[in-house]
Amino acid sequence: MDADSVAKAFVAHYYQTFDTNRAGLANLYQENSMLSFEGEKIQGPQAIGAKLTGLPFQQCHHNVSTVDCQPSGPAGGVLVFVSGSLQLAGEQHQLKFSQMFHLIPTPQGSFYVLNDIFRLNYA
Amino acid sequence: MDADSVAKAFVAHYYQTFDTNRAGLANLYQENSMLSFEGEKIQGPQAIGAKLTGLPFQQCHHNVSTVDCQPSGPAGGVLVFVSGSLQLAGEQHQLKFSQMFHLIPTPQGSFYVLNDIFRLNYA
Repeated sequence: MDADSVAKAFVAHYYQTFDTNRAGLANLYQENSMLSFEGEKIQGPQAIGAKLTGLPFQQCHHNVSTVDCQPSGPAGGVLVFVSGSLQLAGEQHQLKFSQMFHLIPTPQGSFYVLNDIFRLNYA
Repeated sequence: MDADSVAKAFVAHYYQTFDTNRAGLANLYQENSMLSFEGEKIQGPQAIGAKLTGLPFQQCHHNVSTVDCQPSGPAGGVLVFVSGSLQLAGEQHQLKFSQMFHLIPTPQGSFYVLNDIFRLNYA
Protein backbone atom coordinates (compact mmCIF):
# COMPACT_ATOMS: atom_id res chain seq x y z
CA MET A 1 0.00 0.00 0.00
CA ASP A 2 1.47 3.39 -0.95
CA ALA A 3 1.60 6.34 1.46
CA ASP A 4 -1.49 7.99 -0.06
CA SER A 5 -3.61 4.88 0.42
CA VAL A 6 -2.32 4.39 3.98
CA ALA A 7 -3.07 8.02 4.82
CA LYS A 8 -6.54 7.98 3.33
CA ALA A 9 -7.51 4.73 5.08
CA PHE A 10 -6.05 5.88 8.40
CA VAL A 11 -7.79 9.27 8.35
CA ALA A 12 -11.17 7.69 7.57
CA HIS A 13 -10.69 5.13 10.36
CA TYR A 14 -9.37 7.60 12.95
CA TYR A 15 -12.13 10.19 12.72
CA GLN A 16 -14.91 7.63 12.36
CA THR A 17 -13.61 5.94 15.52
CA PHE A 18 -13.30 9.32 17.27
CA ASP A 19 -16.90 10.21 16.41
CA THR A 20 -18.52 6.84 17.18
CA ASN A 21 -16.32 4.92 19.66
CA ARG A 22 -13.72 7.25 21.12
CA ALA A 23 -12.44 4.63 23.60
CA GLY A 24 -11.31 2.57 20.61
CA LEU A 25 -8.66 5.15 19.67
CA ALA A 26 -6.24 3.96 22.39
CA ASN A 27 -5.59 0.82 20.33
CA LEU A 28 -3.90 2.95 17.66
CA TYR A 29 -1.10 4.03 20.04
CA GLN A 30 1.82 2.15 21.65
CA GLU A 31 3.97 2.79 24.75
CA ASN A 32 6.33 5.21 22.96
CA SER A 33 3.47 7.12 21.30
CA MET A 34 3.11 10.83 22.00
CA LEU A 35 0.11 13.14 21.75
CA SER A 36 0.43 16.92 21.89
CA PHE A 37 -3.10 18.21 22.44
CA GLU A 38 -3.35 22.01 22.38
CA GLY A 39 0.19 22.12 23.77
CA GLU A 40 -0.28 19.44 26.45
CA LYS A 41 2.07 16.45 26.02
CA ILE A 42 0.79 12.97 26.82
CA GLN A 43 2.57 9.63 26.35
CA GLY A 44 1.42 6.03 25.99
CA PRO A 45 -1.89 4.44 25.00
CA GLN A 46 -3.53 4.52 28.45
CA ALA A 47 -2.84 8.21 29.08
CA ILE A 48 -3.70 9.18 25.50
CA GLY A 49 -6.92 7.15 25.59
CA ALA A 50 -7.86 8.75 28.92
CA LYS A 51 -7.22 12.24 27.52
CA LEU A 52 -9.33 11.65 24.42
CA THR A 53 -12.25 9.96 26.20
CA GLY A 54 -12.15 12.63 28.91
CA LEU A 55 -12.56 15.61 26.57
CA PRO A 56 -15.48 17.73 27.80
CA PHE A 57 -18.02 16.83 25.12
CA GLN A 58 -19.97 13.68 24.41
CA GLN A 59 -20.74 13.84 20.72
CA CYS A 60 -18.81 15.38 17.88
CA HIS A 61 -18.40 15.14 14.15
CA HIS A 62 -15.17 15.74 12.24
CA ASN A 63 -15.29 17.10 8.69
CA VAL A 64 -11.97 16.56 6.94
CA SER A 65 -11.04 19.28 4.42
CA THR A 66 -7.52 18.31 3.31
CA VAL A 67 -5.21 15.29 3.75
CA ASP A 68 -1.53 15.54 2.82
CA CYS A 69 0.96 12.72 3.26
CA GLN A 70 4.63 11.94 2.70
CA PRO A 71 6.88 8.96 3.50
CA SER A 72 8.86 9.87 6.64
CA GLY A 73 12.07 8.05 5.75
CA PRO A 74 13.46 4.66 4.78
CA ALA A 75 11.74 2.78 7.64
CA GLY A 76 8.29 2.82 6.00
CA GLY A 77 6.70 5.50 8.18
CA VAL A 78 4.04 7.83 6.83
CA LEU A 79 3.42 11.45 7.82
CA VAL A 80 -0.21 12.55 7.58
CA PHE A 81 -1.32 16.19 7.82
CA VAL A 82 -5.04 16.91 8.17
CA SER A 83 -7.08 20.09 8.21
CA GLY A 84 -10.78 20.20 8.89
CA SER A 85 -13.53 21.30 11.20
CA LEU A 86 -15.15 19.85 14.27
CA GLN A 87 -18.83 20.13 15.13
CA LEU A 88 -19.67 19.59 18.80
CA ALA A 89 -23.21 18.55 19.74
CA GLY A 90 -25.21 21.57 20.88
CA GLU A 91 -22.69 24.10 19.54
CA GLN A 92 -23.64 26.37 16.69
CA HIS A 93 -20.20 27.07 15.28
CA GLN A 94 -17.68 24.62 13.92
CA LEU A 95 -14.13 24.66 15.22
CA LYS A 96 -11.32 24.55 12.65
CA PHE A 97 -8.44 22.22 13.45
CA SER A 98 -5.12 20.96 12.08
CA GLN A 99 -3.60 17.65 13.11
CA MET A 100 -0.58 15.61 12.12
CA PHE A 101 0.14 11.91 12.62
CA HIS A 102 3.34 9.92 12.18
CA LEU A 103 2.38 6.33 11.35
CA ILE A 104 4.89 3.53 11.88
CA PRO A 105 4.51 0.04 10.37
CA THR A 106 4.04 -2.86 12.80
CA PRO A 107 5.47 -6.36 12.31
CA GLN A 108 1.85 -7.50 11.81
CA GLY A 109 1.56 -5.43 8.63
CA SER A 110 -0.51 -2.64 10.15
CA PHE A 111 0.44 0.85 11.42
CA TYR A 112 0.45 2.54 14.80
CA VAL A 113 0.55 6.25 15.70
CA LEU A 114 3.98 7.25 17.04
CA ASN A 115 3.36 11.03 16.89
CA ASP A 116 0.07 12.95 17.07
CA ILE A 117 -0.10 16.75 17.28
CA PHE A 118 -3.49 18.49 17.44
CA ARG A 119 -4.27 22.21 17.36
CA LEU A 120 -7.47 24.18 17.04
CA ASN A 121 -7.13 27.05 14.53
CA TYR A 122 -8.66 30.03 16.26
CA ALA A 123 -10.04 32.62 13.85
CA MET B 1 20.16 20.01 22.17
CA ASP B 2 16.70 18.69 23.09
CA ALA B 3 13.80 18.58 20.63
CA ASP B 4 12.22 21.77 22.03
CA SER B 5 15.41 23.78 21.57
CA VAL B 6 15.93 22.40 18.06
CA ALA B 7 12.35 23.24 17.11
CA LYS B 8 12.46 26.75 18.53
CA ALA B 9 15.79 27.57 16.83
CA PHE B 10 14.66 26.06 13.52
CA VAL B 11 11.34 27.91 13.45
CA ALA B 12 13.01 31.26 14.19
CA HIS B 13 15.61 30.63 11.47
CA TYR B 14 13.17 29.32 8.86
CA TYR B 15 10.65 32.18 8.96
CA GLN B 16 13.29 34.88 9.30
CA THR B 17 15.02 33.46 6.22
CA PHE B 18 11.67 33.20 4.41
CA ASP B 19 10.88 36.85 5.15
CA THR B 20 14.33 38.35 4.42
CA ASN B 21 16.23 36.02 2.05
CA ARG B 22 13.85 33.47 0.58
CA ALA B 23 16.47 32.03 -1.79
CA GLY B 24 18.43 30.90 1.28
CA LEU B 25 15.74 28.37 2.21
CA ALA B 26 16.91 25.86 -0.42
CA ASN B 27 19.98 25.15 1.73
CA LEU B 28 17.73 23.59 4.38
CA TYR B 29 16.63 20.78 2.04
CA GLN B 30 18.44 17.76 0.55
CA GLU B 31 17.82 15.56 -2.51
CA ASN B 32 15.28 13.33 -0.74
CA SER B 33 13.42 16.28 0.81
CA MET B 34 9.74 16.73 0.02
CA LEU B 35 7.52 19.81 0.15
CA SER B 36 3.73 19.60 -0.08
CA PHE B 37 2.57 23.17 -0.74
CA GLU B 38 -1.21 23.55 -0.80
CA GLY B 39 -1.42 19.97 -2.10
CA GLU B 40 1.34 20.28 -4.72
CA LYS B 41 4.25 17.85 -4.17
CA ILE B 42 7.79 19.01 -4.91
CA GLN B 43 11.06 17.12 -4.31
CA GLY B 44 14.69 18.18 -3.90
CA PRO B 45 16.36 21.46 -2.95
CA GLN B 46 16.41 23.02 -6.44
CA ALA B 47 12.71 22.43 -7.14
CA ILE B 48 11.69 23.40 -3.59
CA GLY B 49 13.81 26.55 -3.72
CA ALA B 50 12.32 27.47 -7.11
CA LYS B 51 8.79 26.97 -5.78
CA LEU B 52 9.37 29.14 -2.71
CA THR B 53 11.18 31.96 -4.51
CA GLY B 54 8.56 31.86 -7.30
CA LEU B 55 5.57 32.44 -5.03
CA PRO B 56 3.58 35.40 -6.38
CA PHE B 57 4.49 37.96 -3.74
CA GLN B 58 7.69 39.82 -3.00
CA GLN B 59 7.48 40.69 0.68
CA CYS B 60 5.81 38.88 3.51
CA HIS B 61 5.96 38.56 7.26
CA HIS B 62 5.20 35.39 9.22
CA ASN B 63 3.76 35.63 12.73
CA VAL B 64 4.15 32.33 14.57
CA SER B 65 1.34 31.57 17.05
CA THR B 66 2.17 28.04 18.28
CA VAL B 67 5.11 25.63 17.95
CA ASP B 68 4.73 21.98 18.98
CA CYS B 69 7.49 19.40 18.65
CA GLN B 70 8.14 15.72 19.31
CA PRO B 71 11.04 13.36 18.64
CA SER B 72 10.14 11.34 15.52
CA GLY B 73 11.84 8.08 16.52
CA PRO B 74 15.16 6.60 17.62
CA ALA B 75 17.17 8.21 14.76
CA GLY B 76 17.20 11.70 16.32
CA GLY B 77 14.62 13.31 14.03
CA VAL B 78 12.33 16.06 15.28
CA LEU B 79 8.77 16.79 14.18
CA VAL B 80 7.79 20.46 14.33
CA PHE B 81 4.21 21.68 13.96
CA VAL B 82 3.60 25.40 13.51
CA SER B 83 0.49 27.55 13.35
CA GLY B 84 0.52 31.23 12.58
CA SER B 85 -0.44 33.95 10.17
CA LEU B 86 1.12 35.45 7.10
CA GLN B 87 1.00 39.11 6.16
CA LEU B 88 1.65 39.85 2.49
CA ALA B 89 2.84 43.32 1.48
CA GLY B 90 -0.09 45.40 0.24
CA GLU B 91 -2.74 42.99 1.55
CA GLN B 92 -5.06 44.08 4.34
CA HIS B 93 -5.91 40.69 5.80
CA GLN B 94 -3.55 38.14 7.28
CA LEU B 95 -3.69 34.55 6.04
CA LYS B 96 -3.71 31.81 8.68
CA PHE B 97 -1.48 28.84 8.01
CA SER B 98 -0.36 25.52 9.50
CA GLN B 99 2.93 23.86 8.59
CA MET B 100 4.84 20.81 9.70
CA PHE B 101 8.53 19.96 9.31
CA HIS B 102 10.41 16.71 9.86
CA LEU B 103 14.01 17.58 10.76
CA ILE B 104 16.75 14.97 10.36
CA PRO B 105 20.21 15.28 11.93
CA THR B 106 23.18 15.59 9.55
CA PRO B 107 26.64 14.07 10.15
CA GLN B 108 27.86 17.68 10.60
CA GLY B 109 25.72 18.09 13.71
CA SER B 110 23.02 20.21 12.10
CA PHE B 111 19.56 19.33 10.76
CA TYR B 112 17.93 19.30 7.35
CA VAL B 113 14.25 19.30 6.37
CA LEU B 114 13.16 15.88 5.08
CA ASN B 115 9.42 16.62 5.12
CA ASP B 116 7.61 19.96 4.83
CA ILE B 117 3.82 20.24 4.53
CA PHE B 118 2.18 23.69 4.24
CA ARG B 119 -1.50 24.58 4.21
CA LEU B 120 -3.39 27.84 4.42
CA ASN B 121 -6.32 27.65 6.85
CA TYR B 122 -9.19 29.23 4.99
CA ALA B 123 -11.80 30.74 7.28
